[in-house]
Amino acid sequence: MAEERGRRPGNPQTRESILEAAIESFVTEGYGGTTIRAVARTAGVDPALVMHFFGSKDKLFEAAINGTMPVALLVEAIDGDEEHLGERLVRRYLGLWEDPVHGPKLAAVVRSAAATPATAELLKELMTRELLGPVARSLSHDHAHIRGLLAASQLLGLAAMRYLLKIEPLASLPADLVVAAVAPGIQRYLTGTLSLAEATVVPR
Amino acid sequence: MAEERGRRPGNPQTRESILEAAIESFVTEGYGGTTIRAVARTAGVDPALVMHFFGSKDKLFEAAINGTMPVALLVEAIDGDEEHLGERLVRRYLGLWEDPVHGPKLAAVVRSAAATPATAELLKELMTRELLGPVARSLSHDHAHIRGLLAASQLLGLAAMRYLLKIEPLASLPADLVVAAVAPGIQRYLTGTLSLAEATVVPR
Repeated sequence: MAEERGRRPGNPQTRESILEAAIESFVTEGYGGTTIRAVARTAGVDPALVMHFFGSKDKLFEAAINGTMPVALLVEAIDGDEEHLGERLVRRYLGLWEDPVHGPKLAAVVRSAAATPATAELLKELMTRELLGPVARSLSHDHAHIRGLLAASQLLGLAAMRYLLKIEPLASLPADLVVAAVAPGIQRYLTGTLSLAEATVVPR
Repeated sequence: MAEERGRRPGNPQTRESILEAAIESFVTEGYGGTTIRAVARTAGVDPALVMHFFGSKDKLFEAAINGTMPVALLVEAIDGDEEHLGERLVRRYLGLWEDPVHGPKLAAVVRSAAATPATAELLKELMTRELLGPVARSLSHDHAHIRGLLAASQLLGLAAMRYLLKIEPLASLPADLVVAAVAPGIQRYLTGTLSLAEATVVPR
């Protein structure tokens, strides 16, 4: 019972408090402005305990992104007929950006990645492993990985212009119309004819 | 003749030296790290002269972006049959990013815009006026502005993943294959059927 009280190594609540403080700091201060010391102070623990749980600022950031990015909710959109995969992905993706909880966190992480190469690197790794991998594996077509990347490039650019730069009239276009406009292109990237045949022969 | 010597107001070479120093500083130090004073020092002029020519740091930055972004080279790609507009734009766009002079400048400006809201705002204005306007005016279709923005979202996301994040295998894919993969979607955005009919009725 005594084990449950206080903030000590091994207490899952302590780890959670540190993670929350870290997400808060990364979102508001960015990667560069976040220190192990400040995160520890916010969480009310010793900096050594932050290191005990996470090992390094990089690892802490990776855990924070993992705890922030609703990747699993996007991966769920894979389930269903391949013919409507593009539409499901775009609809779910817009839904996440427009969600009052997930949207601001996504915006903060993407802004942070744009400003900091180290952040971009970690985000890239996470997205490749957690999102692009599952999507590519679900496709029955050649060049599944490049197909996923092309789709991701459209989705990233769309979010940047609609949700980060808020460029009108794209920013105010009803989500249904955005889905109607964008999903066919995503579907084509994922399952259409792309003339990527030479890509494996001439990778340059 | 004496008019040609020295660095005084009215001397175009002085303005050019200041602009070069400003571009150099914005690219290496970013918007936040650039000061009128430092630009003046690099250009070997009095800070008052920088203000005389450009009026404010914002205006100096706008002139620097104007001097950096090879917008005119993209706008040239508009000329030709509308049926191949997408292919011409994508090909020219990739060519600029892969150009040894323009590419690094484009990357620096986009990185700077991603990190600084004020930079993003200026870049947004410039792109809308100088690039999107001409492209939209060249289209004979409804919703030309939204069409241009959708195309721009794909092009922006593509550059981010291929040239800034350098995600493989997209980063090493030969440009011809990227054009073949991406141009049909750009063409569809610009001249295809997008079901945007309600967009003017329900702008929300």
